Amino acid sequence: MLLLKVDKASNAPVYRQIVGQIRDLVDRDVLAPGDALPSSRILAEKLGVNRSTVYNAYQELWALGYLESSPGSYTRIRRRTRIATPDTRAAAGLIDWEAASTPAGAEVYRTFLEYRPEYRVRADEDIINLSQLDLDHRLFPAEEFRKCINLALLHRGPKILSYGDYAGYAPLREFIAQRMRTHGVALSADEILITNGSQNGIDLLLKMLVAPGTPVAVEAPTYANVIPLLRYYQARIIPVPMNSDGLDLTSLEKIFQSEHPAFVYTIPNFQNPTGITTSQAHREALLALCEWFRVPVVEDGFEEEMKYFGKVTLPIKSMDRQQTVIYLGTFSKVLFPGVRVGWIAAERECIRRLTALKRFCDLTSSPMVQASLYEFCRLGHYDRHIQRMHRVFRKRMQVALSAMRRHLPPGCGEWMEPVGGYLIWLQLQEPVPDEKELEDIFRRHGVLMSPGRRYFPEMRSRPFFRISISMLDEEEIAEGIRRLGRAMHEICGRAQ
Amino acid sequence: MLLLKVDKASNAPVYRQIVGQIRDLVDRDVLAPGDALPSSRILAEKLGVNRSTVYNAYQELWALGYLESSPGSYTRIRRRTRIATPDTRAAAGLIDWEAASTPAGAEVYRTFLEYRPEYRVRADEDIINLSQLDLDHRLFPAEEFRKCINLALLHRGPKILSYGDYAGYAPLREFIAQRMRTHGVALSADEILITNGSQNGIDLLLKMLVAPGTPVAVEAPTYANVIPLLRYYQARIIPVPMNSDGLDLTSLEKIFQSEHPAFVYTIPNFQNPTGITTSQAHREALLALCEWFRVPVVEDGFEEEMKYFGKVTLPIKSMDRQQTVIYLGTFSKVLFPGVRVGWIAAERECIRRLTALKRFCDLTSSPMVQASLYEFCRLGHYDRHIQRMHRVFRKRMQVALSAMRRHLPPGCGEWMEPVGGYLIWLQLQEPVPDEKELEDIFRRHGVLMSPGRRYFPEMRSRPFFRISISMLDEEEIAEGIRRLGRAMHEICGRAQ
Repeated sequence: MLLLKVDKASNAPVYRQIVGQIRDLVDRDVLAPGDALPSSRILAEKLGVNRSTVYNAYQELWALGYLESSPGSYTRIRRRTRIATPDTRAAAGLIDWEAASTPAGAEVYRTFLEYRPEYRVRADEDIINLSQLDLDHRLFPAEEFRKCINLALLHRGPKILSYGDYAGYAPLREFIAQRMRTHGVALSADEILITNGSQNGIDLLLKMLVAPGTPVAVEAPTYANVIPLLRYYQARIIPVPMNSDGLDLTSLEKIFQSEHPAFVYTIPNFQNPTGITTSQAHREALLALCEWFRVPVVEDGFEEEMKYFGKVTLPIKSMDRQQTVIYLGTFSKVLFPGVRVGWIAAERECIRRLTALKRFCDLTSSPMVQASLYEFCRLGHYDRHIQRMHRVFRKRMQVALSAMRRHLPPGCGEWMEPVGGYLIWLQLQEPVPDEKELEDIFRRHGVLMSPGRRYFPEMRSRPFFRISISMLDEEEIAEGIRRLGRAMHEICGRAQ
Repeated sequence: MLLLKVDKASNAPVYRQIVGQIRDLVDRDVLAPGDALPSSRILAEKLGVNRSTVYNAYQELWALGYLESSPGSYTRIRRRTRIATPDTRAAAGLIDWEAASTPAGAEVYRTFLEYRPEYRVRADEDIINLSQLDLDHRLFPAEEFRKCINLALLHRGPKILSYGDYAGYAPLREFIAQRMRTHGVALSADEILITNGSQNGIDLLLKMLVAPGTPVAVEAPTYANVIPLLRYYQARIIPVPMNSDGLDLTSLEKIFQSEHPAFVYTIPNFQNPTGITTSQAHREALLALCEWFRVPVVEDGFEEEMKYFGKVTLPIKSMDRQQTVIYLGTFSKVLFPGVRVGWIAAERECIRRLTALKRFCDLTSSPMVQASLYEFCRLGHYDRHIQRMHRVFRKRMQVALSAMRRHLPPGCGEWMEPVGGYLIWLQLQEPVPDEKELEDIFRRHGVLMSPGRRYFPEMRSRPFFRISISMLDEEEIAEGIRRLGRAMHEICGRAQ
């Protein structure tokens, strides 16, 4: 006979008490699989409770797998698979995830593991980070943005928390189109797709244009995060060497004579990692070449707004009469990255196809965030912020460059002075120790830079380091370069 | 000789006036390529302006491509490529995007075009939308969420607008881990990866596990948005038929005897589209089968929180001692989709690999949004909201089901009553007209439902329609079902 006790004074509902006790009896093998339970009527009478209480308990026991039959006739005990707890869980699971991964997926993981150490700086370490291209959050107009989120939610109402338009929030696309007009690019909103930052834009482009073996021409060196992704899609990466004035057009023409790349990936402003900005003439020649060979240009304008020295060279996209240029833009490198808003601007037909891919990859980007960003732009905060960034980074870059002239031992390294952005590309005079050893030396002197190898498709050691001043104020930059100078003295002294 | 006029009283800076006039002279062919300009000193004297003003103008003309040489010796006119305007732009560009797309990318686009018409309801049309699985935004706790965004920004400061952790905002992962414990799943935060909604989670999984030709077992019918993505990755889709109690385990076992799928994709609660919830026994058997054959289970718990009838069956993941189950969760189907926050819970090693892929596909999800969501959860708003959703949808589903019993002509269609969620799967009595014709009939009666074909891997016409009540209140649901009843009368009348 089933022995249950019901405590009506307890906080626990009666049906839960019944469930708990029967579970316990099964778990302790007092009740065995196949054992019959009394009907709900009989148990209810015996316990002096309402029949529906027992019915509820039986229903829950059934849902939890402790009763055999289907709802309505809960009669026999069954043994259910126990819930997995940290103790009962196998330390190593059944699946070998390396073997389960596709080769391309496994390679991305290996690259990821190789990238990680850079970011492992302990909070208590006295290290100046000239490595990361994150923005200095002390400059974020967070308060203005907070107000704009409030405006967006109050004006647009709860609907702004729904899925929204696959191509992105229309007023923001309008704003971007208008903004691009100030950069000489005539566009309408339906030639723009909002993405989760530029990286998502690149992923969508590769999804559309790259199959295993597809040739893709990239500047060498180029943006580090694009290489693992090209590898993932099994593109055949064709490196185009960089000269001091941008990618080598003669090499590119030679490539085009025997290859038809899916596109040429180029960063014409403050190129990542070299900091090089190409001239109008270079842009024209590159576009003409690509038009002649009918190869799309992917123009990554990730720091379009950060031209704070000298004058403005317009994007390649501004001359794009043949609609050959796919332009990537982002708010991450001038405003802040935490909104994860970037965009692609291209021919309507191309945008529609990318929108289709986005729809099946993550449905939409957050309309609430986009609406807030739109308010921020509409109210002029974006313009004001850019002006401030120009003022601040014009000075910071001047500090960096004059500190480099002062502290870096002559004949030991070379660099070009950028006309904007956050990056300086340092080439060490060879012979130099292996890159990993160099990293150790820099770190010992309390400074972190980004090693050159990851910017080249072949990823082998090179005598280059990328200096980023994006996270640091003038004092930190000056101190970082002083430390770099000391490290360079050590390296140069050794080499001699 | 160069004829320029400078108006010092004008609002336009003098250097801009010089730039404008020289551009104009070049554009009107008064100045020809190769023509020499006076030195900045001579022009400055002639115009009676500061030499640096002329220097600035020449620098800008160079940047804009109107001067030949490199900065410092601006001397000769060059003809620059004109800026592309809507008039001068080719109507059809050089690139044939269909030909440029990979076959998989092109197929996604075709599917996208086929999907679109469903959403084209004019604002002035009297149509009741039983088609979309969006949530009713009238129920969104937008005001509470707004306050939580403010809290997050004020507490965490501007730093929350930086990139953040690749795996997602740690406190939110903690909350999700704790929440999953209430569903019987013992997890820690490092077994969770935050994604841009579930769809982004599925994309990452496919990126990791599917290469062209990889077999993947899916329920047939299944979640419509997963099929085009499987096609994109060129998975070989193996459909597993659905019975009234869930996917057919006998068929699955037969499949396993000759195939080793990368995973089985299953939705055990209120399956999309059938609304079926599997029993504890079914879950145990499915897991045991997959463990035996070492096939990962992808458990899509997209409406885990929406069990508002009857009792709770725990997720398959709760029994996952062998770490074979990859669980997909989301806030989109109980809170609101506009935050674009979902998650994947799986063995650490699997999560690390997915994190690597996410890092190279879109870097991170917005930390600001995640921190706001965390505040929302921490303050108990999430719990309260779920309770409200249960109350509201328990009633709404009752309204829907009783209206169906009342208005749908007997013998004309069949359906099962779900124990939660938003979906009812309607099977029409055959013979029925073609699905597109059925859609027209429904639409003529002022009601929209989602046609069955898109839920089957083969995408051919079927006598099924998915009814979703997620966007509608009780009155709208009742009226929608009344209209459906009228349409069904017409269809059944015809068939006889």
